[in-house]
Amino acid sequence: MSSILVIYASDYGGTEKMAQAVAKGAESVEGTSVVLKKADDVNAADIQASDGVIIGTPVHMGSMDWRIKKLIDTQCSGLWMQDAMNGKVAGVFASGSGFGSAGGGVELTMLSMLNNFAELGMIIIPLPKNTPLYHKGGLQWGPYGRSADENMSPSGISEDVLKVSESHGRHIARAAALLKETPVFG
Amino acid sequence: MSSILVIYASDYGGTEKMAQAVAKGAESVEGTSVVLKKADDVNAADIQASDGVIIGTPVHMGSMDWRIKKLIDTQCSGLWMQDAMNGKVAGVFASGSGFGSAGGGVELTMLSMLNNFAELGMIIIPLPKNTPLYHKGGLQWGPYGRSADENMSPSGISEDVLKVSESHGRHIARAAALLKETPVFG
Amino acid sequence: MSSILVIYASDYGGTEKMAQAVAKGAESVEGTSVVLKKADDVNAADIQASDGVIIGTPVHMGSMDWRIKKLIDTQCSGLWMQDAMNGKVAGVFASGSGFGSAGGGVELTMLSMLNNFAELGMIIIPLPKNTPLYHKGGLQWGPYGRSADENMSPSGISEDVLKVSESHGRHIARAAALLKETPVFG
Amino acid sequence: MSSILVIYASDYGGTEKMAQAVAKGAESVEGTSVVLKKADDVNAADIQASDGVIIGTPVHMGSMDWRIKKLIDTQCSGLWMQDAMNGKVAGVFASGSGFGSAGGGVELTMLSMLNNFAELGMIIIPLPKNTPLYHKGGLQWGPYGRSADENMSPSGISEDVLKVSESHGRHIARAAALLKETPVFG
Repeated sequence: MSSILVIYASDYGGTEKMAQAVAKGAESVEGTSVVLKKADDVNAADIQASDGVIIGTPVHMGSMDWRIKKLIDTQCSGLWMQDAMNGKVAGVFASGSGFGSAGGGVELTMLSMLNNFAELGMIIIPLPKNTPLYHKGGLQWGPYGRSADENMSPSGISEDVLKVSESHGRHIARAAALLKETPVFG
Repeated sequence: MSSILVIYASDYGGTEKMAQAVAKGAESVEGTSVVLKKADDVNAADIQASDGVIIGTPVHMGSMDWRIKKLIDTQCSGLWMQDAMNGKVAGVFASGSGFGSAGGGVELTMLSMLNNFAELGMIIIPLPKNTPLYHKGGLQWGPYGRSADENMSPSGISEDVLKVSESHGRHIARAAALLKETPVFG
Repeated sequence: MSSILVIYASDYGGTEKMAQAVAKGAESVEGTSVVLKKADDVNAADIQASDGVIIGTPVHMGSMDWRIKKLIDTQCSGLWMQDAMNGKVAGVFASGSGFGSAGGGVELTMLSMLNNFAELGMIIIPLPKNTPLYHKGGLQWGPYGRSADENMSPSGISEDVLKVSESHGRHIARAAALLKETPVFG
Repeated sequence: MSSILVIYASDYGGTEKMAQAVAKGAESVEGTSVVLKKADDVNAADIQASDGVIIGTPVHMGSMDWRIKKLIDTQCSGLWMQDAMNGKVAGVFASGSGFGSAGGGVELTMLSMLNNFAELGMIIIPLPKNTPLYHKGGLQWGPYGRSADENMSPSGISEDVLKVSESHGRHIARAAALLKETPVFG
């Protein structure tokens, strides 16, 4: 039995929908229990109790939502001090509106969340290009949901993005189960 | 007359000392007024009233302090919508303890703050290698103050780092005065 | 009189077209001379003779073309040792095909080129959101030209992207002229 | 039986020593065969034949050595097209001289190599903080060897850094063996 924690912040519900899809994908892996929580409601014990952690955020000015950052500062720092998460599994996802067709800061957003996981000694699961519908909602680091078109007219998160998110959750749950059995570090 | 806003968050006073040194350097440029404020006390009007903005943060788990991020999410997003900061000048600095001799995430920390400034259309002032004492407290993106040695034993921010910070403030105040006179964009 | 050097690598001509547009924009600024060169043909003296440098690259596996990197390693390192570029002006642009709508690594690509410029002590000019047609070919760090659609079917670089590139060249030429007159560092 | 490929570029032998230590660590894992090659000598078939790939580079102007980038552009792009590396294991290491105590660009250097691996769909192994001697030669993304002191006086790569590199090789070989048995993606 392995456990996955899906953490998110959301403004208008887009990232929340993606979080639900990630959770659904993780649950589809036999022997996996999933907890889905808003960042504000997560504490260090929740994180420590998990074999895999997935964080999702809206992109705000090229980095993660401040509520995610508050969680990392106040709850993850202690886990880092204690080396409590070594060898567990991590992944990320994000949503974003904004202009253009280049993500408006989503790469740095995902990387700064992954930086936290790397400091915690966690193994990072990317999103392979041949994941079904990747071209509709994927980035190499994880699912990315456009919530507006290039003119910032709201479009909502597409079903395609939710399918990609589900795959990501499934991948991470599989990896968490596998790596729980056999430690890599030490 | 040009005005510089120095914004910071600080846990044990190290980043605050650096912020004071940055402010002192900016003040040394004739015709410059400087405002020094904690992130919690800054609002969008403070930012918009400035010709140059410098943000400093402790490095927490490889990214900026959540109080800085809260400021960016709640105050800078609106300025971005309004294109209110185009062509003004920006810079960053950071402090960090932690292990090793590679900054423990300071690069991504600085870059995610600079990402915010780039989205605001602000011109970015780096820290040149021949700045006096650079090798004691410099990184290409701005001053970096080690607040603990490689074993995490607290050392405080050195006088050398404060000198580097002063230079950075001076550079940015000069650039702000210059770019205020002659717009680059448009 | 100030001089701008536009450097690029190109596989199928997309980045070259953008480079030509950037050069055209720079030339439109009175008193500016422009040199446009492939990375293979640039040496340290070319760079040192310039008041502003703009580098463009295709995105390859999430970072710059190896010919750009070879130029940086073999020609820029020496300029860094000599502090030869301090206070001059820099900018970047990129093209990319690939899947999805998140740039496939363009942010890290641009940032790693900007890292080189920051180490050289150069002042960085971003691309403001209210640049005309930004939403068709802009990223906060510089113009980004999609050369294929989300299914990797080649589309070529659009006229809109070329217009954005022209604006970027014009901005940087203006900044170079201004900063040449009045040194910020030292 | 699983196979690890250690790829490196080296100027003065520092990164080569680290590569040898990484290879030694990987070899210490039962059932692992290791190939150690300079970037110039590696082709796509070498990479595809491996269950885990580790790349090491000197830091040059804040990004990877151009010989590493050439390898990625010419050999990895095709593997990306073919989805040939999904679910295999990846890691990085770097050496650097330069000023200061913040790594001079090592984070972006490591991240741009990891970006390549993420695009290839490879699972990323970081370096946990409690790895013995981490504080002498570790960064969250992998071993980092200082080859000069803060004044750029050459110091060579320390024995401590080599020990950290050995641990990293061992971790990755273990992960490669484990993930070879049980696919995570698909």
